[in-house]
Amino acid sequence: MAITLKTSYFSANSPNHVEFHEQSLIELIENGQIGQIIHQSDPDYQKTLTAAQTTDQLITIAPGHYLLPGFIDLHNHAPQWPQAGIALDRPLNDWLNHYTFPLEARFADLDYATAVYRDLVHTLLTNGTTSALYFGSIHNNANLKLAEICAQLGQRAFIGTVVMDNPEQTPANYRDVNSATALSKTRTFIQAIQNQHPDQLVQPVITPRFIPSCQTETLTQLGRLAQETQLRVQTHCSQSTWEHQYVLDRFGQTDSVVLQQFGLLNQHAVLAHATQLTTADQQLIKTEQAAIAHCPLSNAYFGNGVFPTKQLLDQQLKIGLGTDIAGGYSPSLYTNLQTAVTASQMRQDGVDARLPADSRGVADSRITTEEAFYLATAGGAASLAINAGQIKLGMLADFQIVQAAPQFTTLTPADQLTHLLFNHTAQQIKAVYVNGQLVHQKEQNWYDNAQ
Amino acid sequence: MAITLKTSYFSANSPNHVEFHEQSLIELIENGQIGQIIHQSDPDYQKTLTAAQTTDQLITIAPGHYLLPGFIDLHNHAPQWPQAGIALDRPLNDWLNHYTFPLEARFADLDYATAVYRDLVHTLLTNGTTSALYFGSIHNNANLKLAEICAQLGQRAFIGTVVMDNPEQTPANYRDVNSATALSKTRTFIQAIQNQHPDQLVQPVITPRFIPSCQTETLTQLGRLAQETQLRVQTHCSQSTWEHQYVLDRFGQTDSVVLQQFGLLNQHAVLAHATQLTTADQQLIKTEQAAIAHCPLSNAYFGNGVFPTKQLLDQQLKIGLGTDIAGGYSPSLYTNLQTAVTASQMRQDGVDARLPADSRGVADSRITTEEAFYLATAGGAASLAINAGQIKLGMLADFQIVQAAPQFTTLTPADQLTHLLFNHTAQQIKAVYVNGQLVHQKEQNWYDNAQ
Repeated sequence: MAITLKTSYFSANSPNHVEFHEQSLIELIENGQIGQIIHQSDPDYQKTLTAAQTTDQLITIAPGHYLLPGFIDLHNHAPQWPQAGIALDRPLNDWLNHYTFPLEARFADLDYATAVYRDLVHTLLTNGTTSALYFGSIHNNANLKLAEICAQLGQRAFIGTVVMDNPEQTPANYRDVNSATALSKTRTFIQAIQNQHPDQLVQPVITPRFIPSCQTETLTQLGRLAQETQLRVQTHCSQSTWEHQYVLDRFGQTDSVVLQQFGLLNQHAVLAHATQLTTADQQLIKTEQAAIAHCPLSNAYFGNGVFPTKQLLDQQLKIGLGTDIAGGYSPSLYTNLQTAVTASQMRQDGVDARLPADSRGVADSRITTEEAFYLATAGGAASLAINAGQIKLGMLADFQIVQAAPQFTTLTPADQLTHLLFNHTAQQIKAVYVNGQLVHQKEQNWYDNAQ
Repeated sequence: MAITLKTSYFSANSPNHVEFHEQSLIELIENGQIGQIIHQSDPDYQKTLTAAQTTDQLITIAPGHYLLPGFIDLHNHAPQWPQAGIALDRPLNDWLNHYTFPLEARFADLDYATAVYRDLVHTLLTNGTTSALYFGSIHNNANLKLAEICAQLGQRAFIGTVVMDNPEQTPANYRDVNSATALSKTRTFIQAIQNQHPDQLVQPVITPRFIPSCQTETLTQLGRLAQETQLRVQTHCSQSTWEHQYVLDRFGQTDSVVLQQFGLLNQHAVLAHATQLTTADQQLIKTEQAAIAHCPLSNAYFGNGVFPTKQLLDQQLKIGLGTDIAGGYSPSLYTNLQTAVTASQMRQDGVDARLPADSRGVADSRITTEEAFYLATAGGAASLAINAGQIKLGMLADFQIVQAAPQFTTLTPADQLTHLLFNHTAQQIKAVYVNGQLVHQKEQNWYDNAQ
């Protein structure tokens, strides 16, 4: 039975164009897509409204509430959720070896994994994140449990079993034995996800952790697997000065070039961070149509520089936003889109007021709220090549219904969007839909019908 | 009747020393102070506990909850609350003239002021802010209403009626007529606050907006008033390259020197922002024992550089944290203390990865979570010279009781504090006390007695 929502909504069609419509009629059809959108100016509006009322499938969103596309988290390490916000004062390799790897090793325990993943997926949904691209741990069982929980709670998920087998860069108790087991583990995981989730709400992703933690043979084999299966790939790329230099020292080339040579940088790839890219790297990523998961909070701690979001958006690279739990401390893409704007302003202004004002930062770096909103929605969808992230005919009905904070002045739609995105708490996300299904609601007062 | 709280707590005695105590007994006495603190290791612990139980004045905080000092917001423009998060992409003087001044002008309407201020003060309390240093608007009536609301809702408040009379830098419909009226308005306001709030929960502050918006005679008169009354002073200081240069052009000296010459920079002064200080300015502020309100979110947008928090903390300047509503978009000092740490890391790492790693930023700039916690509590209290901001015998009983987010691993006290401060939503602030009085509670499940 189709449902029609009567609601005002915002949707970013491009980085520079956010649509706003008041009290439109959005029909959700059984395949989980948006079957029809009728605006108030449409001649069929009244007829459609009456028809929806008559058949009692109309949900009228309460005043002061807005529908937005669900947010897409393009980089999230699910097993790091217990350490969100902890030890961010350590350098990346220290943080990995002393905090992160020991924590991830605990996910051999399926009960532990279940408790953590249930809390994480629930938390993301309550924060309006309808799709997530997850790094799991090295353990297939725990990763399949994450997939099961995403399916149960109704989140669209792309999950990788993490491959890491380089004995020089990984601890003995948390590493794949060798290339062959890493590869067979990955094949097994892919098969299991595809068998257990035929509806494709959850899909597998080939996931070499990053170049430092993988042996060369392993990168070769995973590249071939990516070529053979045409599946998505995720990895970290030029994340920090240390990591970038490590790859230069080992291969004499940058991450991007090395990944491309192994067949791991293509139109199915999502590269996390990428703060240290050279101009040639940026061009290569554009040519190969790979995507970048910009993680502004994490980058502030581990990136050793601010990602040039504005410049690469203008060059039409595919870019979305990631929380990078737990390199970033917040599970909320609201916090991350706010930080994306803030960090871009800081890139423009620089940090050291003792320098002349015009040489402190990088001119024309600032992104707008609209651009950040695009990144969290349509940019993420383009990066994952999913038919979502916009409120548009034929798109998957993945969205959030958000109550505006109290407001004491009349706002233009553009200011209303900024107010909504910057004055936000999870309390204001009243309902979340994935695939046309209500998967979370805070209270029942976000629609009028109950009143 | 005295109340005893049985609770674990964190308290920063200095930037580098945070105390943690488990299940201590904290007695609140009738004058609003902490009358006694007994730790578990104290020989009198059991006796004191039994006595409190017997007299039925014991409140046992529920497991997973912690008591922290209430946060102190050292810079907040109350009438800008309606535009939180809006138009931050404008340069400071444009933002002032096209958004901020027209909004503040609306506070001639007392009904409007009442609605906004009630929402703001309530929001700050629910975010754990027990004290705030407010800029009002230019209207005494609205500012007195703000004072009344703070007293009603139980927030400790320091409020200034804003002085701005320079016709070159202020709009005709939102300015004081001249120096004489600005001065007499300020005197009237001070008298009214002192008459209406004899308990001193609300106190008046001399408030020249900033040098650009004040005529020279007005700065002279307000400086004399500060000398005569020995009241607190608040103003903006070297906030942006534009503002800093404006003062250099007009007076041939920096803000700090000019303010000091007018008698507006002394041990009672709180200077907001201060991102553009010279080394000599920093030394002058230290010598004069003035305080700085560091507003990290606002600075990212308007500061044209990152405040050198670590360096000036190490030099033992008085520094606290401000939200700078609405130059900063968040009413939460949690968000601002997180951003203080993040911005300090960015100051250290710089923004432009194309530069050599060791010349991108400013070495040794990073502050720790403990230092940020100090800023939000004891640092703010030292800046206002109030006997609060720490959990300590004789201190004012201003605090918040916070529920930790779900946690899946055993944390050291230091990691627990970070987890508490970085994984935070206002939902987790369960109770807020000011002056030993419960002024806000979320639900009643933060203590055990009700169970």
